[in-house]
Amino acid sequence: MKFTEKLLDISRKNRSLLCIGLDPDPELMPGVDILQFNKAIIDATRDLVCAYKPNLAFYEALGTAGPAILEKTIKYVPGDIPVIGDAKRGDIGNTARAYARALFSVLGFDAATVNPYLGFDSLEPFISYQDKGVFVLCRTSNKGALDFQDLNTDGRPLYETVAHKAMEWNTHGNVGLVVGATYPEELKRVRSICPEMCLLIPGIGAQGGDLASAVNYGVDARGEKAIINVSRQVLYASREEDFARAARAAAEKLRKEINFHLASSPEPE
Amino acid sequence: MKFTEKLLDISRKNRSLLCIGLDPDPELMPGVDILQFNKAIIDATRDLVCAYKPNLAFYEALGTAGPAILEKTIKYVPGDIPVIGDAKRGDIGNTARAYARALFSVLGFDAATVNPYLGFDSLEPFISYQDKGVFVLCRTSNKGALDFQDLNTDGRPLYETVAHKAMEWNTHGNVGLVVGATYPEELKRVRSICPEMCLLIPGIGAQGGDLASAVNYGVDARGEKAIINVSRQVLYASREEDFARAARAAAEKLRKEINFHLASSPEPE
Repeated sequence: MKFTEKLLDISRKNRSLLCIGLDPDPELMPGVDILQFNKAIIDATRDLVCAYKPNLAFYEALGTAGPAILEKTIKYVPGDIPVIGDAKRGDIGNTARAYARALFSVLGFDAATVNPYLGFDSLEPFISYQDKGVFVLCRTSNKGALDFQDLNTDGRPLYETVAHKAMEWNTHGNVGLVVGATYPEELKRVRSICPEMCLLIPGIGAQGGDLASAVNYGVDARGEKAIINVSRQVLYASREEDFARAARAAAEKLRKEINFHLASSPEPE
Repeated sequence: MKFTEKLLDISRKNRSLLCIGLDPDPELMPGVDILQFNKAIIDATRDLVCAYKPNLAFYEALGTAGPAILEKTIKYVPGDIPVIGDAKRGDIGNTARAYARALFSVLGFDAATVNPYLGFDSLEPFISYQDKGVFVLCRTSNKGALDFQDLNTDGRPLYETVAHKAMEWNTHGNVGLVVGATYPEELKRVRSICPEMCLLIPGIGAQGGDLASAVNYGVDARGEKAIINVSRQVLYASREEDFARAARAAAEKLRKEINFHLASSPEPE
């Protein structure tokens, strides 16, 4: 099944655009085993989300035990919920193929994030997995996004050039973009360039992005295809034993707010 | 000890600018255990190199066994030879810190490659490890490099803007750049912008870069600080049982050629 179909199916079933970032940080966690923590979060939120998104950095920081915990976490996610590998990989031909194999075949992610700096031939090995989603970094949610992504490239900022190129490269319909909620005007601009693409939108919560504009500017004309990611605000809603219940409450609140903004968003023209 | 000192010490001792990319590809390897393969390559070439550079993609593609093989490979490299983690990571604050910890503290690399697309705050967690080298992707060796890196950004190509920014960010003296040997003019240009930085230069051998110009344009005014990486041409010089001996012969030949070009290169002005 193609990534976008899987995403839309669960998004409709769970009436949710919320994605939870499974980013275990031992310094922030209650004293439980990391795999058990992830499983408890998944159990508590599986009817409230459209996707889960583990960021590989947090598993790599665990040392040699990390990959097995990641693999088991991915396998534990119910089969109808897509899992996005937030890896931001980018390398050349032969090496990009190894990364794509690692993420899609070995770990079994439904989608992955990639970095565009090395150009098309660094992304093609990912895109050629036609059933997998490939989210290209476009306008990221951090301050440093301004350093290069906003540079004027022949009349338009680099991130817009990336969005246009992503459209061109989307021959299998499996390319999406990452656009941070912390820059609502840029999000609006990207959605206007790519009216039908899936957008992965981080930056809500700890990073301070505004939920209303993330929803209003991020969704397509049908009010879909925006994946609004929240990590810390859900995972660490409580750092005590009741963390799973607190995570569910936080996720429920977010889903409700997202759906409220969706219902009150201006009609598409 | 600082990365650059360690690099210069071994480079002078071994009279070598050659770096061997430890990129095990099961499809290309003789039928031996991967860790044993890496150890045999290291044993056969340790007096001929200035660095080793494992690309993490090849270890991730091995599945959950990969990280332990990588960790043991790094530990096996003699302590006076720097090991560069070719990871091309780039992520935001909190996550970049987890990647830097994974590469420098957990795996123990002496240096790492990073992707500049997310800007300064994505690189700062790496740069703040002052004894570690941080190689920022500048002009990569692949065809796709043209897609974004050559875009005109207010009068100069993006890769030059990255080189200028890297100079600005190099307050601890531990920032270097990655520039492909397949684009000699661009390499020359980057060396002129950054006369004293370490440059990591892939693209020789299988990728077709010219060794003479990589050496002539890559080195600093003293004929140093260029790290010329070769992977497949050395690792798979033979795919039979004699692979280690063949790798040594290939590495010896490359070192000799590099030193020949170095001796015959024009005097610095």
